[in-house]
Amino acid sequence: VRKGETIAVAQAISLVEKNGEGKEELLDMLFPYSSEALLLGITGPPGSGKSSIVDRLIALERTRGHRVGVLAVDPSSPFTGGALLGDRVRMQRHAGDPGVFIRSMATRGYLGGVSPATSDAAKICAAAGYDTVIIETIGVGQSEVEVVELADIILLVLVPGAGDEVQIMKAGIMEIGDYLVVNKCDREGAERLKTEIEYVLRLGNAERDAGVLLTSAKTGEGIDELHERISDRVKSMKESGNLDARRAARLKMELRKILHQKLHEMLESHLEIDDRIDAWIDMLVQGKSVPYRLIQSKIEEFKEGVR
Amino acid sequence: VRKGETIAVAQAISLVEKNGEGKEELLDMLFPYSSEALLLGITGPPGSGKSSIVDRLIALERTRGHRVGVLAVDPSSPFTGGALLGDRVRMQRHAGDPGVFIRSMATRGYLGGVSPATSDAAKICAAAGYDTVIIETIGVGQSEVEVVELADIILLVLVPGAGDEVQIMKAGIMEIGDYLVVNKCDREGAERLKTEIEYVLRLGNAERDAGVLLTSAKTGEGIDELHERISDRVKSMKESGNLDARRAARLKMELRKILHQKLHEMLESHLEIDDRIDAWIDMLVQGKSVPYRLIQSKIEEFKEGVR
Repeated sequence: VRKGETIAVAQAISLVEKNGEGKEELLDMLFPYSSEALLLGITGPPGSGKSSIVDRLIALERTRGHRVGVLAVDPSSPFTGGALLGDRVRMQRHAGDPGVFIRSMATRGYLGGVSPATSDAAKICAAAGYDTVIIETIGVGQSEVEVVELADIILLVLVPGAGDEVQIMKAGIMEIGDYLVVNKCDREGAERLKTEIEYVLRLGNAERDAGVLLTSAKTGEGIDELHERISDRVKSMKESGNLDARRAARLKMELRKILHQKLHEMLESHLEIDDRIDAWIDMLVQGKSVPYRLIQSKIEEFKEGVR
Repeated sequence: VRKGETIAVAQAISLVEKNGEGKEELLDMLFPYSSEALLLGITGPPGSGKSSIVDRLIALERTRGHRVGVLAVDPSSPFTGGALLGDRVRMQRHAGDPGVFIRSMATRGYLGGVSPATSDAAKICAAAGYDTVIIETIGVGQSEVEVVELADIILLVLVPGAGDEVQIMKAGIMEIGDYLVVNKCDREGAERLKTEIEYVLRLGNAERDAGVLLTSAKTGEGIDELHERISDRVKSMKESGNLDARRAARLKMELRKILHQKLHEMLESHLEIDDRIDAWIDMLVQGKSVPYRLIQSKIEEFKEGVR
């Protein structure tokens, strides 16, 4: 992985995806090298043109000599052939370029949502020397929030005329993107959507440097500016210490999550919940116990036996 | 609560919402009476007319002499005044009817999603003698899945021309509704959407009795039939034992969730994670440890100290 060998990177990601033997040791070994890449998250509703923007950004990154890893978590992404979950990556024009690594990540069966292995995959890419790792997720419901937990900088891609402007604003996802990109800017309503978003941002008194940009991934309009703004922002985040702060916050969340996950597994196996829960339900249904009293006794049992 | 006093019900729900002192005892006391109501979940995208359908269903239930509780988890629901989270219920035409209890449930700040207290609130309503408890949630992303965990029977409300038919189907939420309701059936495309949904259901080889119904909450068209179909279905679910099975499955999920939540809290407080996590992050950043090794040592510390 550290040599940047594509096959090793792919195998390492497969290992973390299937939570295989040696995963933790591998990630611990790579950890010291896993913060050297910029993690760029890109999210937005289906059909907003995220993948086309990613395609353009890859090209620009390559002209700067950067190696780029792409993790596509969007099941309807062109990278995954527009197909449903589990499909392999369809090779794009960059796929023959050894400086570009594209990988689709399986989600856990719901639209949107970030595979739990995505964060690990990003670290593997970083340790393999990819300078920029782009994480593309479909933006539905909670997944925007999840991608925030993954990336150093976030683009939220919207399109005019999708009729969901108001809804998007209500959802509070205005709080999310470092940059809000109105793609398909040749469509009617693009300027209006931009104005509305800016209005909401002002209302929300957003204390961040977020900008609203008009792009057309199809013609390339606005992409150079987007790319430059990202680079500038990364630079200023580095200088101000905000990048380190964001990464520390992310690491905290991850540590907590793993700690709780481990304990979750301990509880399940120690109490043999799978095998015993039917009997517990019977007790409740037959009026022999009530839920919280039952739970308290199981917690005690766990505490007694865990050492 | 058992006397069906509105104020007591409202106070009990407030207690569970704020996770107050005595919550567990209250729920344990009410548990034996908490399965006597039918829990009807209704979900769908914003603007699909869920609240208008609920309004119509309340009226029909009242003509049968049933008492109805409504828990509106949708922040953009008319019941909450179209406002954002935390707003109070706007009184509807049923609000003056003592046989109707309407309550908005605060969500945790994201669009869609079911408040963790919703399930408890439904149990309180059931124990208070409401025959039918309607749980209305906005259908975005994961929340459809969550409402399935709450209700005995689910209506998924769609509207023609929203442009999200394909997306909805991909999302797998076709697996969710017991009844798929195409509302605003006077709109162009209603029949086509119905046909498409039926096609997908056949493709998916759905082994359930789900039907696709056309309604217009505005004119009332189709609502009588919907109401009748629900009643018939409940009857057949009772006879076949499917209702009990679904409730047992739900109770299992709840037990597990509470067990894990309790352990989660134990871990947080025992390890004093809030106070110590900054120091852990420093160790990682300074290269003095690596994540999984660190986590392992914290798990050991928890196990040592928990008794």
